[in-house]
Amino acid sequence: MLKLFEYNWQVRKEWFDWCRTVSEEELMKRRIGGIGYILPTLYHIVATEYGWICGGIQNKAIEIPPFAEVASLQQIQDFSARCHVELAPFVYNWNDSLEDRIMIDITDEGEREAHKYGEVMRHVIAHEIHHIGQLSIWSREIGKEPVTANLIGRRLFDI
Amino acid sequence: MLKLFEYNWQVRKEWFDWCRTVSEEELMKRRIGGIGYILPTLYHIVATEYGWICGGIQNKAIEIPPFAEVASLQQIQDFSARCHVELAPFVYNWNDSLEDRIMIDITDEGEREAHKYGEVMRHVIAHEIHHIGQLSIWSREIGKEPVTANLIGRRLFDI
Repeated sequence: MLKLFEYNWQVRKEWFDWCRTVSEEELMKRRIGGIGYILPTLYHIVATEYGWICGGIQNKAIEIPPFAEVASLQQIQDFSARCHVELAPFVYNWNDSLEDRIMIDITDEGEREAHKYGEVMRHVIAHEIHHIGQLSIWSREIGKEPVTANLIGRRLFDI
Repeated sequence: MLKLFEYNWQVRKEWFDWCRTVSEEELMKRRIGGIGYILPTLYHIVATEYGWICGGIQNKAIEIPPFAEVASLQQIQDFSARCHVELAPFVYNWNDSLEDRIMIDITDEGEREAHKYGEVMRHVIAHEIHHIGQLSIWSREIGKEPVTANLIGRRLFDI
């Protein structure tokens, strides 16, 4: 589980770096599909991971700033770093005994839904990779090479 | 590990169904980013999973047909099904003792690279989710709702 989170965190860092090579206008330009903009996509990735792990599984009282309050690259990267400090210990301490524990989620429609921790963790992993795939298309639309999505070659695994 | 493969297989099946609601022309229209076309993206996902798991990890003599030989939705879905029969047993029999085993890959440049099985498996998982994220953008460009990427809500986990 941890390795896929580490992959996502490394890729996210590289997308923040990529964003520094692009104008602010491009980062906030309306695009087709997904969240519709590059910067809000990165915000959404951070907020979703934080919301599910700290707010959901750990059931902490968390506060997720609205996008407007962190609407710059630096502020979103700072938001990501703050969330990371809070949620990374849970991910690093993950073990198989947590797989089947249950959390209760209140959906936007006010319904209570039960999810296994293992399901939530994989949801968060897939969620980030999916949205990063969308960024890679928008990157090519801008005429720029996207961050590589390859997991192999990132030295996440020692040999 | 298995759950993320099951997620990918379920999502892939839904994209094949989605493709049936779209003209052949749209499936083969040149697009910006990724593999550049919808149908070749699905082919690429199948070939990559099969190549790494059966050809790479299991070191079987496999044959991957060039795209031109399976260049229709039905043929790619059949190709996917044939590969699935071959590779699914390995995924279902996955266990932690396989994590650190080593496979040798010969890169396109002819170099030998060693990878842990666990790294390859996660590479394959992330690879498919990434390309599916790209399809979701192209789907909106066509004006169609994409297949949901949510992992939660797919009943992959019993409660």
